[in-house]
Amino acid sequence: MAKQNIYDNETFFEGYKKLRDNKINANNLFEIPALFSMMPDLKGKRVLDLGCGFGEHCKQFIHRGAQKVVGIDISEKMLEVARKENSDSGITYINMPMEEIAQLKERFDVVVSSLAFHYVEDFSGVVRSIYDMLDADGIFIFSQENPLCTCHSGGDRWTRDENGKKLHLNLADYGIEGERESVWFVDNVKKYHRTFSTIINTLIEAGFSVEKMIEPLPTDELLQQYPDYKDLFHKPDFLLVRVKK
Amino acid sequence: MAKQNIYDNETFFEGYKKLRDNKINANNLFEIPALFSMMPDLKGKRVLDLGCGFGEHCKQFIHRGAQKVVGIDISEKMLEVARKENSDSGITYINMPMEEIAQLKERFDVVVSSLAFHYVEDFSGVVRSIYDMLDADGIFIFSQENPLCTCHSGGDRWTRDENGKKLHLNLADYGIEGERESVWFVDNVKKYHRTFSTIINTLIEAGFSVEKMIEPLPTDELLQQYPDYKDLFHKPDFLLVRVKK
Repeated sequence: MAKQNIYDNETFFEGYKKLRDNKINANNLFEIPALFSMMPDLKGKRVLDLGCGFGEHCKQFIHRGAQKVVGIDISEKMLEVARKENSDSGITYINMPMEEIAQLKERFDVVVSSLAFHYVEDFSGVVRSIYDMLDADGIFIFSQENPLCTCHSGGDRWTRDENGKKLHLNLADYGIEGERESVWFVDNVKKYHRTFSTIINTLIEAGFSVEKMIEPLPTDELLQQYPDYKDLFHKPDFLLVRVKK
Repeated sequence: MAKQNIYDNETFFEGYKKLRDNKINANNLFEIPALFSMMPDLKGKRVLDLGCGFGEHCKQFIHRGAQKVVGIDISEKMLEVARKENSDSGITYINMPMEEIAQLKERFDVVVSSLAFHYVEDFSGVVRSIYDMLDADGIFIFSQENPLCTCHSGGDRWTRDENGKKLHLNLADYGIEGERESVWFVDNVKKYHRTFSTIINTLIEAGFSVEKMIEPLPTDELLQQYPDYKDLFHKPDFLLVRVKK
């Protein structure tokens, strides 16, 4: 099975880098705070970051006291930035698709993955590998696009009024799982849709206990500053899950 | 807090009874099979049915070997039918809102609730009472309207083509939890919307381990017989969850 590696595409990479350089985005406002709110005490812990990208989270884990961090990513271009901007003696960056992590033959206390799983076809296989690599009581935390997003192919699925205001999401094919093609800087970005119940059942079948789910929504305070994010009340962009071995 | 008791409304009751008399409906084709697929071995077990209605499930639990079944329902009219059509020496029917079950002071091995929780405002309180009434390793299984349904007030939320074919669901307000008013035989039927994550987190916070979620979808075989149910692939009607103490 060929793994998709859009992040090494030049156009994608430049578009993505620009997006990340803008600090006011849904990742920074919603996904990252929710992810870190679920994080256990990392002091002395061995942490694996799946789809680590530019390595910002890896560096943050070291700041929080992690003893050792391994960041893996399918994109060598992303890791070049990571090694330049977020290197540390405690961090090892490895160019590898996450479907192959069983090859690492290492043990971890915490596995984290930020916004990468919707690109993974074999979710169940990766989840089983994570379970095997975690020590007893190990924690696995991940974020992905919300299933209310991943169910759609193509671009915008909103119905808007004459002023462009989003009225509702045109929800279709939620119950049909599998590959979707979407446009994000480049054409034919492949994503994989799974329902809420498939995601949770896959984790449970691998042996995990579910500890928490988050679908981040804006606070009143945040809405006053960024009123456009009220659309998240129609459809949250993200889903985060914390499970325990 | 006054509990809603639409089932004692004459118009609602007649409409509902007629719906249930027709055996080809989404309950019989999707919800009931999913509910019973999650059921543990009931031999010798004490079972509590919350919102038991006409008592069909209570009778079924006795057929499956349950030692004792308690069926509670807020509607005395429903229980009159239950006592007439589904009585058994092992079944006790009690007219009580499920928010008050802590008063029962009984212990159970299995608690079941079929399509009643979307009428309950204090989900968290009821879940805590269920946890307290279950013995160790006790199982709690429930079905409710899918959160993709409960998020909407009013009636039909579909966008259709000129032939009436459903194109997509107009999904709005999924992230806004709480009361909704809908029309089902009568006006002002109150339902309560909760997101997938709130439902799961409430169960976990009460002390339960999540064992399985089901959002029932039609099989190919069923679609050949009832092709209209393909719309469930846009939006499943039900959510079922099984948890363990």
